[in-house]
Amino acid sequence: MSPTTFETPRAATAAPRRPQERIVTLMHGAGGRAMRALVEDTLVAGFPMGAAGVIGLESMDDGAAIPLGDGWLVLTTDSHVVHPWEFPGGDIGRLSISGTVNDLAMMGATEPLGLTSAIVIEEGFSLADLERVQASMAAACREAGVTVVTGDTKVMGRGELDGIVINTTGVALARSVVRDCGLVPGDRILMTGTIGDHGIALMAARHGLAFDEGLSSDVAPINGLVRLALEAAPGAVRAMKDPTRGGVASALHEMAEKSGVGIVVEAGRMPVSPAVRSAAEILGLDPFHIANEGKAILGVAAEAADVVLEALRSHPRGADAAIVGECIAQQVGRVILDTGFGRRLVTEPEGEPLPRIC
Amino acid sequence: MSPTTFETPRAATAAPRRPQERIVTLMHGAGGRAMRALVEDTLVAGFPMGAAGVIGLESMDDGAAIPLGDGWLVLTTDSHVVHPWEFPGGDIGRLSISGTVNDLAMMGATEPLGLTSAIVIEEGFSLADLERVQASMAAACREAGVTVVTGDTKVMGRGELDGIVINTTGVALARSVVRDCGLVPGDRILMTGTIGDHGIALMAARHGLAFDEGLSSDVAPINGLVRLALEAAPGAVRAMKDPTRGGVASALHEMAEKSGVGIVVEAGRMPVSPAVRSAAEILGLDPFHIANEGKAILGVAAEAADVVLEALRSHPRGADAAIVGECIAQQVGRVILDTGFGRRLVTEPEGEPLPRIC
Repeated sequence: MSPTTFETPRAATAAPRRPQERIVTLMHGAGGRAMRALVEDTLVAGFPMGAAGVIGLESMDDGAAIPLGDGWLVLTTDSHVVHPWEFPGGDIGRLSISGTVNDLAMMGATEPLGLTSAIVIEEGFSLADLERVQASMAAACREAGVTVVTGDTKVMGRGELDGIVINTTGVALARSVVRDCGLVPGDRILMTGTIGDHGIALMAARHGLAFDEGLSSDVAPINGLVRLALEAAPGAVRAMKDPTRGGVASALHEMAEKSGVGIVVEAGRMPVSPAVRSAAEILGLDPFHIANEGKAILGVAAEAADVVLEALRSHPRGADAAIVGECIAQQVGRVILDTGFGRRLVTEPEGEPLPRIC
Repeated sequence: MSPTTFETPRAATAAPRRPQERIVTLMHGAGGRAMRALVEDTLVAGFPMGAAGVIGLESMDDGAAIPLGDGWLVLTTDSHVVHPWEFPGGDIGRLSISGTVNDLAMMGATEPLGLTSAIVIEEGFSLADLERVQASMAAACREAGVTVVTGDTKVMGRGELDGIVINTTGVALARSVVRDCGLVPGDRILMTGTIGDHGIALMAARHGLAFDEGLSSDVAPINGLVRLALEAAPGAVRAMKDPTRGGVASALHEMAEKSGVGIVVEAGRMPVSPAVRSAAEILGLDPFHIANEGKAILGVAAEAADVVLEALRSHPRGADAAIVGECIAQQVGRVILDTGFGRRLVTEPEGEPLPRIC
């Protein structure tokens, strides 16, 4: 019997390492190619097949859909590790409700049956701060017309967790499911509002930029907005995705690749706020690569694009919505930016440039 | 503008603290009275009411149940922070699948539609270890007859997380729901097997006790076992709970209090393995207070107790099942231990004595 290791909880991961051991890096959690490779190569491997008809892990969509009655049960999960936990425009509570509500909405399920909330807290976290996070979750629930039906609470020791991590999982019923792979040539690409707001606001907060420069996260539940779009032209919304980690660039690449189309985006039509544009320049970041937490990309049948745009713009969270591009049969899997002066390929980011963005 | 805080991610929680500030402690995550108070006072507060008929947060059960068609949609979530992530008899992968499958089973839902898996990993975690965790999750899924249908992956920086945290959330349909509050006087209390195995094995591993002493976690999915019990005497199982954090003592107290009964347990009938009994003595721990991860407490109508016991014993994971006590109309909310020499109250633990037990 050796002495206790109870007091040294990091021993398990801090053991001496073989040279060139393959390890997890920040890039593996950053929503881009590196993460996709980790998930495909390691984290999907070996699970039993789902029941017939299930849209499961292998689809790598925003969530899963399980056939139920004459519709679908839609299920999605996200663990939120955002740092700092409070930022201009929101906090981890608002983010955790919005992220899961929005992932359900991206599958066409805009009326969640319920959410779960599992909170892991570092010993020493202020109870007053926890109460603020809780109030923020509750407020976001009211905004989305949803509630938390069950939860879990864990505490890790001081130094074992940086603050707070919140997992939310959501379940909803949907008559039909919208995938991220349903684009066909000719479809229009709609953006529901300005891009880059969440990531730039986070980055500014981390760098101590003043909050009065108009930088604020867009974090919000947008299931109500999405519902308007779906109802405006039933069946016309062919694909949806929310451009979170890796930003619009990552999301468009994934949609193009899975759908087997190319996507041409007109740079001049993409909504970007002046504050984000100038902060992105200062920080050396491209808004196309930056996370959003209250926006969606919609692929819409050409003939319905104007109707859907109008529906989006009728909602406060869709005031800046725009038709920003279209799908082509060539350049499959690629995203092409039309700058007005010429065309260039948009690179798919290896991963989100900012760790712990959501 | 101040210099970057990007390199000092702990700043948000390490800020100077007011004297006597109320903070989260390890006891708040330990499954006992302290955790219940935190959840009731803070973490349930403010959420919108669920739809009519929903068994939600306020019930503080193992999960939620939402009326759907002529049955229920059952939903449960757990974040797993166990340390070390690998231990005699299991690892965090097996634990995360079993924990959620078992919580569903405790509500009477023994055939999950699907699970979600959200993994948060510390930068530097070995990919080979991650592959082992993954294989362990997949194996536990096959054992339970379930699969993971969607997931999420996040990475936190070195020193921001101690190793790996896995949230699993499960969804299932059930014709009827079993609560933890359904006991009535006269009901028999059944234990599906030996108690204390998980917590004692973890504690032994942390203290460097040799693995060859027969100490091994009981972590396993027991939905198949529970299904046998439910089918053996439909309607006769009045309440179920899996005695995880806080052990049998916590679980029995919660069942007694919510049901409005007293519970008398015969000490001599409670199954405890010789290895756990002697290790618990060495470590100064009471097996009644120690976590289990593959066991259930069943409250069964007296006339069906023998039939249910027989059903449990016909399953490999129920070989040691026993009728250990019964419910009385007196001493409401209390748990009484009959030692054979007299009766004494079983104290409700303030919390599980071992942090990060699951």
